[in-house]
Amino acid sequence: MGMTMTQKILAAHAGLESVSAGQLIEAELDLVLGNDITSPVAINEFEKCGASSVFHKDKIALVLDHFTPNKDIKAAEQCRQVRNFANQYQITNFFDVGQMGIEHALLPEKGLVVPGDCVIGADSHTCTYGALGAFSTGVGSTDMAAGMITGKAWFKVPSAIRIVLKNKPTKWVSGKDVILHLIGRIGVDGALYRSLEFTGSGVKYLSMDDRLCIANMAIEAGAKNGIFPVDEVTLDYGKGRFQHEPVVYAADEDAVYDETVEIDLGKIRPTVAFPHLPENTKTIDEVGKIKIDQSVIGSCTNGRMEDLRAAAAILKDRKVAKDVRCIILPGTQAIYLQALREGLAEIFVEAGAVFSTPTCGPCLGGHMGILGKGERAISTTNRNFVGRMGHIESEVYLASPAVAAASAVTGYITDPEQLTEGVQK
Amino acid sequence: MGMTMTQKILAAHAGLESVSAGQLIEAELDLVLGNDITSPVAINEFEKCGASSVFHKDKIALVLDHFTPNKDIKAAEQCRQVRNFANQYQITNFFDVGQMGIEHALLPEKGLVVPGDCVIGADSHTCTYGALGAFSTGVGSTDMAAGMITGKAWFKVPSAIRIVLKNKPTKWVSGKDVILHLIGRIGVDGALYRSLEFTGSGVKYLSMDDRLCIANMAIEAGAKNGIFPVDEVTLDYGKGRFQHEPVVYAADEDAVYDETVEIDLGKIRPTVAFPHLPENTKTIDEVGKIKIDQSVIGSCTNGRMEDLRAAAAILKDRKVAKDVRCIILPGTQAIYLQALREGLAEIFVEAGAVFSTPTCGPCLGGHMGILGKGERAISTTNRNFVGRMGHIESEVYLASPAVAAASAVTGYITDPEQLTEGVQK
Repeated sequence: MGMTMTQKILAAHAGLESVSAGQLIEAELDLVLGNDITSPVAINEFEKCGASSVFHKDKIALVLDHFTPNKDIKAAEQCRQVRNFANQYQITNFFDVGQMGIEHALLPEKGLVVPGDCVIGADSHTCTYGALGAFSTGVGSTDMAAGMITGKAWFKVPSAIRIVLKNKPTKWVSGKDVILHLIGRIGVDGALYRSLEFTGSGVKYLSMDDRLCIANMAIEAGAKNGIFPVDEVTLDYGKGRFQHEPVVYAADEDAVYDETVEIDLGKIRPTVAFPHLPENTKTIDEVGKIKIDQSVIGSCTNGRMEDLRAAAAILKDRKVAKDVRCIILPGTQAIYLQALREGLAEIFVEAGAVFSTPTCGPCLGGHMGILGKGERAISTTNRNFVGRMGHIESEVYLASPAVAAASAVTGYITDPEQLTEGVQK
Repeated sequence: MGMTMTQKILAAHAGLESVSAGQLIEAELDLVLGNDITSPVAINEFEKCGASSVFHKDKIALVLDHFTPNKDIKAAEQCRQVRNFANQYQITNFFDVGQMGIEHALLPEKGLVVPGDCVIGADSHTCTYGALGAFSTGVGSTDMAAGMITGKAWFKVPSAIRIVLKNKPTKWVSGKDVILHLIGRIGVDGALYRSLEFTGSGVKYLSMDDRLCIANMAIEAGAKNGIFPVDEVTLDYGKGRFQHEPVVYAADEDAVYDETVEIDLGKIRPTVAFPHLPENTKTIDEVGKIKIDQSVIGSCTNGRMEDLRAAAAILKDRKVAKDVRCIILPGTQAIYLQALREGLAEIFVEAGAVFSTPTCGPCLGGHMGILGKGERAISTTNRNFVGRMGHIESEVYLASPAVAAASAVTGYITDPEQLTEGVQK
């Protein structure tokens, strides 16, 4: 019986000829990731185990991104614990405030994950790296601790849903609309503990930033991972970037899938997930008049260059509406710098938006844009659970950067096309 | 008996021929200021009084700067209360996230305070506007409420200390060094309830940014206000900026001062205030080797263009030291924009510093750079009280932007000259 792409990667990392869905395996890890919230817990577990060394100082990434620059004393203490650990074990890939970015934007950018890798991270959106044709998934902090010690992790091999993409998305449709559309169709537990394997003739129309966004939100359908085939787009992205040799895996021709979902990219409309679940999707045409208090553009889902360019195309020579706060947070310092050089930062500030330093910030109710009672945000982040961005009586609507920017301008959830007829994305 | 400059302004605003120290007067106000922390308290008092209108919708400034973008739910609620009040009473000068800046950087920049004005603000650093030859002082939120209703405030007329400045400061000496030097000499209660009236042939060598910094920290010597004569520098600054007609007041020739302090600007060295009081000053030559964890450049004291330029002159082509977080916060969105256009933002990010959106942030332990136990910051802010920037066992050393930037590079409190021999400030 043939294997899925995910199964091929897992088999290779377990030193097995083949694996099948449901099988328990122990796999070698290419990278173990933690952030300022999850790493302290992992470090405590690491120390409880009496460990005195890490499996590989180059294969651990510690990123201070969630509540940084330190939002409070607790954040300061957590960051210090991670910093001390990184120094003690000479962790190569430790990223502090100022060298940093949001972990899932930073690691691909630095070339630390390459096609064929097997990666765990103590953060649920670790599945992002599936965009590169790697297996990567979120784990708890104890698994992170074990991974840092042994370089290995146990997995139950997932079965898969095949997502067949065809045709080309229209102007203001991005990866975010594709994944919101999919989650709207299959639900937040539609892919529970399964792989989402993206394939089909439409894949080539998706940029790496689109793919990173789509794979990032695989977890929002309950998936163990989301994964894309390795193609020209992947290899172009990797040129001069990949820090080790990629290995290209492809699903067997006779791979077995639980089901197949076809998506015509050409028919997807800008899509918005209403409170309080990512599956509560409506197309922009069905939204109605929803007034917003805040627009957030950024996060590990949508804080990359294409996201900022889309927002800038809309905000250029326009103004953020009265009583709307538009908060734009680039994914990494390199993205920040590029946005400066392309003039995007200037466009944002001229429009009356805030362009600040990389942080997960408001996405998970951390800081830099928390909502009060009854307030409503449109946000390019990945979760709109009750109270996710602040008060339990606040609301988050998930959308693409283009929709979030257009909504910032009008003060209502808005189709970018309405503002930009004729403007190139 | 002659009047001081401060007394002349107060007399005019009280409609009196003359006033003398200790006299209680009621003065007309040109501006009443509040921020996101103090305004909610004032608004509650305003409502308790049963007030149904403000004295003048153009003469109230409400600035959301302290814990914004909203650091938590409480901050969100406070900002919303102020926003609603501003809408209800059609307050002209309401500054929300994205249009905003730090109040004491923003109001002079917008030309809302001009020479001869009488201003109160529910923030202790309201004394900043003395740089413009205005009387301005910090009050409590109840005084702010009364001011918003009546447009008047009661004052006890202060006596004054005359500060005679002479000669020109040397290369890396800025307004911050001058005020730290002065506080080091007279102490944190050296000017208690008195005016600090700056005068002398050295005044002309101080830029408006220097003066704003010096007047800003008058309160750190306990002063009721600090004030500068109106000269070419003031009037140049005001061109195309002042929103109403300035009135120039000067001290009478026979004005009586409690005492006179002479400062030879040419002899001031870069100065650092050690924990935990601004009066604990040492010159950079006396500092010794003090390791730092964080360098903060910004605040209402030192977040202006000259401050950012001084920091950039040092950070250009250099890197922030390992394990040091360098957090640079421009005073206003206009300053942010200018820093983008001059290439300073690029220099900061390339150096590995954070360049974020305007906020008071870490200065008062709010967010965006809070210190953990045992951590040490060099900071261009105005107070280094116990726990001011985080944990009660953290330490803050106050200094100029040049010293803070040089220290960020070396990781130790450092004389800028040590790094920059031959570099123009």
